[in-house]
Amino acid sequence: MDLFDNVDKTHINELGEFGLIDHLTKNIKLTHKSTLKGVGDDAAVLDYAGKKVLVSTDMLLEGIHFDLAYTPLKHLGYKAVQVNLSDICAMNATPAQVTVSIGMSSKYTLEAIEELYEGIYLACEKYRVDIIGGDTTSSKQGLVISITVLGYADEESITYRNGAQEGDLICVSGDLGGAYTGLQLLEREKLVYLENPQIQPDLEGKDYIIERQLKPEARLDIIDLLKNMNVKPTAMIDVSDGLASEVLHICTQSNKGCQLYEEKIPIDPMTYETAREFNLDPTICALSGGEDYELLFTVKQADYDKIKNDVDISIIGYITEPAAGRNLISKSGQVHELKAQGWNAFKK
Amino acid sequence: MDLFDNVDKTHINELGEFGLIDHLTKNIKLTHKSTLKGVGDDAAVLDYAGKKVLVSTDMLLEGIHFDLAYTPLKHLGYKAVQVNLSDICAMNATPAQVTVSIGMSSKYTLEAIEELYEGIYLACEKYRVDIIGGDTTSSKQGLVISITVLGYADEESITYRNGAQEGDLICVSGDLGGAYTGLQLLEREKLVYLENPQIQPDLEGKDYIIERQLKPEARLDIIDLLKNMNVKPTAMIDVSDGLASEVLHICTQSNKGCQLYEEKIPIDPMTYETAREFNLDPTICALSGGEDYELLFTVKQADYDKIKNDVDISIIGYITEPAAGRNLISKSGQVHELKAQGWNAFKK
Repeated sequence: MDLFDNVDKTHINELGEFGLIDHLTKNIKLTHKSTLKGVGDDAAVLDYAGKKVLVSTDMLLEGIHFDLAYTPLKHLGYKAVQVNLSDICAMNATPAQVTVSIGMSSKYTLEAIEELYEGIYLACEKYRVDIIGGDTTSSKQGLVISITVLGYADEESITYRNGAQEGDLICVSGDLGGAYTGLQLLEREKLVYLENPQIQPDLEGKDYIIERQLKPEARLDIIDLLKNMNVKPTAMIDVSDGLASEVLHICTQSNKGCQLYEEKIPIDPMTYETAREFNLDPTICALSGGEDYELLFTVKQADYDKIKNDVDISIIGYITEPAAGRNLISKSGQVHELKAQGWNAFKK
Repeated sequence: MDLFDNVDKTHINELGEFGLIDHLTKNIKLTHKSTLKGVGDDAAVLDYAGKKVLVSTDMLLEGIHFDLAYTPLKHLGYKAVQVNLSDICAMNATPAQVTVSIGMSSKYTLEAIEELYEGIYLACEKYRVDIIGGDTTSSKQGLVISITVLGYADEESITYRNGAQEGDLICVSGDLGGAYTGLQLLEREKLVYLENPQIQPDLEGKDYIIERQLKPEARLDIIDLLKNMNVKPTAMIDVSDGLASEVLHICTQSNKGCQLYEEKIPIDPMTYETAREFNLDPTICALSGGEDYELLFTVKQADYDKIKNDVDISIIGYITEPAAGRNLISKSGQVHELKAQGWNAFKK
């Protein structure tokens, strides 16, 4: 992929800022009745009568959060929206609107920025979210994406991180560690490519974990599922920094301890196998890898029967009194203190 | 100013992301009753029962929107908030909450980022705005600031750009062109300094226009004033890109023409004098300079008596039928077509 292959392409500075904004926003359709006015004035106007409004924001910077060597711009746009939607889901709420600010150097062509927006639009369309504003600016170098998402919920549905109670079951959606092992694969193939550009990337059969890294999905379906099951989580957070970090956030904010069982942590066979290929412990990938954007939540024991048979939810432990500590019980039965090491865990 | 003077200073990577966020947000006080939950969960929770919600966002990038050679970080933080508040004021609404996302390279010290936040806090405190969330990340290089602001208004108060009617008076608050001439001064002194670091900047007696550039104020006072006068503007926009561009936005969105009178455009004597020093036409500075963050608005002729004596509001022309064109009447009585040239106007 060559972003700077400019033959027959349009430089964004030919359009000017207003031209670029018009071009990128002219096809926006508003679907939420709470969106009274979107792009085109000094501010958007929303109406959430009777509902609480939720707001979250995330900034993605080139070279820090993504590497354009192996991240197609369309995927990047898609992911930038998903990581924001995930934060609203993690409050047990429904995302409804986003603002999208982009800083791009003048080397980017219109076609490149269109590709980025295609991914943004795709994510918004799929999750029925309105784009209501933003800012488009040139940058000295590097691509900057800053997205703010707004959502809504009934007050009684909103789930904070601090509501976990002793005895609550700790649950997680989907499976973990895939995004991190996918990243390892992409990084390896990038190195191979840099050494010999003739060699094509060898990612065959690895679609699932590559997609976990490049095209994550916010688990809005889990929010709907829990509503349909009539389960209100007592605490919830999304898994962006790794399972360990998120469990500890819930324990700290709820002032509780936990028992987590290694054998219960859901890991896809492809994640497991790839971690082994890279000489990594699959459990560490799940605990510290991050970027899975699954939902971690606690439920009352009374809700056990409602969730026990759902294939998309794993019960991985339970909440304890704070004095019991925050523990991970290994497959061999050993008790380890749970630590949020993030990517430090992988440093040799 | 040396941002990278690191003796006895704390590197932000020593704190880690969560440590830095805690450090920067621990003193946040929430004052709006619409702010139910601020920083500390996946999303903030707001309650605007009965009011419409307004949202706007702006991104500022080092080297594009600001030059740290002459912009103190505290001023930068202050300005970054003001340019956002200004967008909510331009809807005839009241700003209430902001999210603040910052990307900073690891070269910045904790003291530097604290200085930036000091300006952000100062602006929020002065304008009674709650900081409800954000994102703090490292950048490869350069400082990135992305702010989203939320505000509220009664539906009948909200003023769009498209409501101007034939015969309406075109009004502007404060004075124009100061921010641009202030920038010229700062750029000149930077060049002098780069050529000879022994020479101290010569900005004496230029406080007003330097402040117009470095420390603009959103005109929330004008919103209050208009309410107290019982004047509802028919259209409104803030002057961020220069008077010409903003008048044309109102004309285009309202599908109207205009007559604008050069002699009526409010220009401070210091702006006038400094423009002349730089061999610039003061009117061009007002029309195309931008960054004044004054409010441009139209009112019904029936409201003339209410506003005519206010020293902070100038009536600079009136709205016409679209066929009459968009005209600027020069001091000598000549009719020119109004064009939005932005900074192109200054190219020789």
